[in-house]
Amino acid sequence: MINNIEIIKAKTTKINDVDFDNLKFGHVFSDHMLECKFKDGKWETPKVVPYQALSLDPSAKIFHYGQSVFEGMKAYKDENENVWLFRPLDNFKRLNISSKRLAIPELPENYFMDGLKTLLQVDNEWIPQKGGSSLYIRPFVFASGNGFHASPADEYTFIIATAPSGAYFSGKVKVLIEEKYSRSANGGVGYAKAGGNYAGQFYPTQLAIDKGYQQVIWTDDNTHEYIEEAGAMNIFVRINDTLVTGPTSDRILDGITRKSIIELAEAEGIPVEVRKLTVHEVVSAAKDGSLKEMFGAGTAAVISPIAGFGYKGTDYDLPELENTYASSLKKRITDIQTNKAEDPFGWRYKVE
Amino acid sequence: MINNIEIIKAKTTKINDVDFDNLKFGHVFSDHMLECKFKDGKWETPKVVPYQALSLDPSAKIFHYGQSVFEGMKAYKDENENVWLFRPLDNFKRLNISSKRLAIPELPENYFMDGLKTLLQVDNEWIPQKGGSSLYIRPFVFASGNGFHASPADEYTFIIATAPSGAYFSGKVKVLIEEKYSRSANGGVGYAKAGGNYAGQFYPTQLAIDKGYQQVIWTDDNTHEYIEEAGAMNIFVRINDTLVTGPTSDRILDGITRKSIIELAEAEGIPVEVRKLTVHEVVSAAKDGSLKEMFGAGTAAVISPIAGFGYKGTDYDLPELENTYASSLKKRITDIQTNKAEDPFGWRYKVE
Ligand SMILES: Cc1ncc(COP(=O)(O)O)c(C=O)c1O
Ligand SMILES: Cc1ncc(COP(=O)(O)O)c(C=O)c1O
Repeated sequence: MINNIEIIKAKTTKINDVDFDNLKFGHVFSDHMLECKFKDGKWETPKVVPYQALSLDPSAKIFHYGQSVFEGMKAYKDENENVWLFRPLDNFKRLNISSKRLAIPELPENYFMDGLKTLLQVDNEWIPQKGGSSLYIRPFVFASGNGFHASPADEYTFIIATAPSGAYFSGKVKVLIEEKYSRSANGGVGYAKAGGNYAGQFYPTQLAIDKGYQQVIWTDDNTHEYIEEAGAMNIFVRINDTLVTGPTSDRILDGITRKSIIELAEAEGIPVEVRKLTVHEVVSAAKDGSLKEMFGAGTAAVISPIAGFGYKGTDYDLPELENTYASSLKKRITDIQTNKAEDPFGWRYKVE
Repeated sequence: MINNIEIIKAKTTKINDVDFDNLKFGHVFSDHMLECKFKDGKWETPKVVPYQALSLDPSAKIFHYGQSVFEGMKAYKDENENVWLFRPLDNFKRLNISSKRLAIPELPENYFMDGLKTLLQVDNEWIPQKGGSSLYIRPFVFASGNGFHASPADEYTFIIATAPSGAYFSGKVKVLIEEKYSRSANGGVGYAKAGGNYAGQFYPTQLAIDKGYQQVIWTDDNTHEYIEEAGAMNIFVRINDTLVTGPTSDRILDGITRKSIIELAEAEGIPVEVRKLTVHEVVSAAKDGSLKEMFGAGTAAVISPIAGFGYKGTDYDLPELENTYASSLKKRITDIQTNKAEDPFGWRYKVE
């Protein structure tokens, strides 16, 4: 543990204004945040400071060149008030993978891990205990250096902010399989959690929402024949009893929920195939009844069952099953995350 | 003209610290900026305010989702102290094209044009008069609304900041034709001046710089066989006496310099072809000596001659010609921009 993380406490707390029984997702922010700056070629020691506005020059490169990356994690409090994270080192590693692709300096592991733990200790009261809720954790790094030249910044800011949160989606979602727009290029930044990947999805997603869907399922930009992923989730499809998900690539985010679900399903004896999945195959399976389930998997939504999908003007409904993989796998993973079940995988990480 | 643009003057001026004879590109900012906010579903009236730091919540969506677009323009002062812009309405229109793709609300034309003119009047002293220098103008719009949900913001900020600037590149550049990384996807945001497009280029460009090149020439993400554009410039190639440039597409920015150069060249009687241009063709032409020139075209660099290119480990040098298209077209366009020559195209725009 870095023992010189400075803690500057907020003068007042906002916690009494928060209705912990009716939390939305990412709308209320805890009293403190972790802040750490990169200057003169090195990361300075992180500090815990009051959650407060950031002051930036109008020429700061974040405003112009989208040089930013982020992560999404959750902290859970069990009934004994113990606090747990889920595979946090994987988020740390992925943040640095993203940073490298975006020409952002990588962070030392202890700045991230010790900084996060210190922050969670300071804002322990903000971690919800109620089932279904958690403390959403948002580490992010952005170009805070100045100048209008389209080149990497010379200063960066790393922040971890947290938000006590309820569910991301409520209920099942209807999705649209995309035929025109795309999310990422071969040789591009799709595998990184880079800010620009998300803004590029908003307009096509809005068009899908206008047609009555909640999410877009992205396909490859060249043929639109392969299923890639959703806005902030990887995609799983159950055909008969087999669970299928596409391989990751330089276009697709290597989701931590995705890889955990693959391991969990295999441990439960569910046949799993990681292979290219065509839109054609999914549509055919929907037509002949072998398509039993589809769901998204990601930290924010955990597992989000899909009620049906639209493709080339036709809507395909998925059957309403009694015992779904989605619900049993969601229970398995959240039980592990929240310390309600054994963790044979060593994924759970105690904050102390 | 909107006659209620409020002007809040800076208390002091920084102009006396500026060495107008040795300006770099985009490093010194004028005393004022235009600011305009989008709130409650509408753009508020723009204001001229002192150039000053912006205060943003750590959850502002610009930090997380790269929701931002920008433009690049220049103002020139002629020897009679008249101030000129070059095709400013095209920048305005392109800003809105970019905004639409990024799910950012579009701006009213008079907010942009009248706001810009008012700003240039207030900071008239900052517009350099010296040949080769100009006032670089940076309009940009970013998501200033808050929240960790990956969806469009509900508040935006539009700013025009300016920087008296010298040349962007000095001298000829050596470029690398990219075989692995790419800038944009079919159905993506490549045609928009979206922040994320630039950050994604930094790392591959850094790899090219490490190998001794200054710029990357992007190719299509699917085959890497077609020449697309450079980091902030469109690309022209002269084969024998014909000037060739690729067509624009949803992957390529529709450059204002590019389209002006096409028109100027045609008016000069230069044969121009706008058609797909393969890497193979350029390499073959370099080998048989029919490749006479290559240059980039964009507002910042105007025309940037290319000395040679690297491709698959081989370097190809371009000949040193006496009278190049690059230099004659650069003179033509800058003479029009700076009011040194007639403007038969109606491109020049007087600020008054
Ligand atoms: C594009 C994208 N795909 C997939 C995921 C799921 O990844 P994880 O399970 O690590 O949260 C996310 C969210 O983090 C994402 O943003
Ligand atoms: C990617 C890209 N291509 C081309 C250009 C050239 O466009 P323009 O001539 O309008 O400046 C720019 C710069 O604006 C650019 O950013």
